[in-house]
Amino acid sequence: MKILLVMQGMQPEDWRRQLELLTPTETVGIWPGDGRLDSVKYALAWHPPHGALAQLPNLEAIFSLGAGVDHLIGDPALPNVPIVRIVDPNLTMRMTEYVVFHVLLHHRRFHDYDRQQKLKQWQELHQPAAKEVRVGIMGMGVLGTDAACKLRDLGFQVAGWSNSVKDISGIESFAGSDGLPAFLNRTDILVCLLPHTPDTEGILNKKLFNSLAQDGQLQGPVLINAGRGKLQIEDDIIAALDSGKLHAVSLDVFEHEPLPASSALWQHQGVTITPHNASESDDRALSKYILEQIKKYEAGDGLDNIVDNARGY
Amino acid sequence: MKILLVMQGMQPEDWRRQLELLTPTETVGIWPGDGRLDSVKYALAWHPPHGALAQLPNLEAIFSLGAGVDHLIGDPALPNVPIVRIVDPNLTMRMTEYVVFHVLLHHRRFHDYDRQQKLKQWQELHQPAAKEVRVGIMGMGVLGTDAACKLRDLGFQVAGWSNSVKDISGIESFAGSDGLPAFLNRTDILVCLLPHTPDTEGILNKKLFNSLAQDGQLQGPVLINAGRGKLQIEDDIIAALDSGKLHAVSLDVFEHEPLPASSALWQHQGVTITPHNASESDDRALSKYILEQIKKYEAGDGLDNIVDNARGY
Repeated sequence: MKILLVMQGMQPEDWRRQLELLTPTETVGIWPGDGRLDSVKYALAWHPPHGALAQLPNLEAIFSLGAGVDHLIGDPALPNVPIVRIVDPNLTMRMTEYVVFHVLLHHRRFHDYDRQQKLKQWQELHQPAAKEVRVGIMGMGVLGTDAACKLRDLGFQVAGWSNSVKDISGIESFAGSDGLPAFLNRTDILVCLLPHTPDTEGILNKKLFNSLAQDGQLQGPVLINAGRGKLQIEDDIIAALDSGKLHAVSLDVFEHEPLPASSALWQHQGVTITPHNASESDDRALSKYILEQIKKYEAGDGLDNIVDNARGY
Repeated sequence: MKILLVMQGMQPEDWRRQLELLTPTETVGIWPGDGRLDSVKYALAWHPPHGALAQLPNLEAIFSLGAGVDHLIGDPALPNVPIVRIVDPNLTMRMTEYVVFHVLLHHRRFHDYDRQQKLKQWQELHQPAAKEVRVGIMGMGVLGTDAACKLRDLGFQVAGWSNSVKDISGIESFAGSDGLPAFLNRTDILVCLLPHTPDTEGILNKKLFNSLAQDGQLQGPVLINAGRGKLQIEDDIIAALDSGKLHAVSLDVFEHEPLPASSALWQHQGVTITPHNASESDDRALSKYILEQIKKYEAGDGLDNIVDNARGY
């Protein structure tokens, strides 16, 4: 049993079934398993209990079953082995779908037309051309870059903000904390795809909202967060919507998930909520990816997409 | 006064202002104008009164102020001069926005999530990957081809149906009435961008809906019509929604526009309505295009995008 599933909040049986279909000669264990923890070389992890991974003495690699690794990094007893992030085209495409859809939702004033339909009102509303609208993407990794390119191809003015300057055709690049004010100041629709790290926690706050462009062609600045809930200060979002500093928001992630019924976000004007489904893990595609990585590693060719623990992603 | 605006349902003063800004030495007339109809060489037309264009003895070309020309072709006294269709990148991009947005609206089950939000329900719903969903586009002219390519880039399986076979990378092509059944039979989301001609009138009917794929990964077939209202039989759409032959529809055009308050479509389950705004004419961009065409024509270089009157588009 060299593969062990260590997960909370996902169904390990579904993963085991999928993995064993793809690799019939292998037995896949589920934490805490049958006790033979010293045979485990690879852990497939999602929100593992703190300390669980430390009990695997011969662990060689950890595979994170989602785009982020914040669910791992917080474990004080995390073994010092490579952590592999999932970079799956299926995951990327779903995130791009989410981002493109929510940008167009606001750009095309869908909520206004929906209200009009309910009132049987036939009324065309002003809408700028895409080339008059500036989208800004925070986080220009694999996901951010793909979404940025698709939005650029639809005609939007797209810029990205990341740790280092990126050279992507037709996409303006801003980097680091020095580049943040100018990036925000030219942004009408802000898309956040950042990982959750000590540096990014609470970055979507009042000060940031106040820095967004106030001279845009839309009715006001728009925020789309499909990164992590801990990036946002929800009280600041509500205050910014009330004061008009934000016109509308689409949120896929929240400070506390599932979003409590008591949250004012559920029914606040201008808020579109999805239940952290922007990019769901497809266990079939991800299982295939992980088994390919293990095969590659055992052939001596190393692992792809290893997390830099110092950066936290 | 060689340019005359002949329009109903648009504001000719806005167009005149825009044109005169771009060509300050020219006077632009508004039908019926100042009576000197023999000086008019170019008519810019939108739903002109029947017979009006016939009163321009020295007319050399008609410019249609939208993507379709059905509003002109019906005039029994239409002068025998070239009709120029508008092919404006701005118009194309807006139509692509509309198509991509409404495909994603259904693919991402937005209406279901919207209902859940109103009930404060946090529940992830099954959604296939884009590569498991087959989009079919009827009408593969400039607009259809651009929308098809953007949807292909988002990962959908895209096919087009047109008069003749088209060779576009990654997009399956079906042609003519012989190709229609196979095209429909592999289509989960049908996008209609056809022009209105005697051949296409009423093509979106019960028989067509019954031919759509019944084995798709979505909850049922979806229709998106952003072509012309006369292509659809609205009673058949409602019956197909009621019987489950269609799961949902997005309609931008209608048999009668504005859609009468008495129409059952307004509040029917599964119907998304927009007020014929999929691709609005931007008078600034279109004015520029038309003046460039006139300049090119007067320099002896001919006109682009001339309508084939026999085909009707």
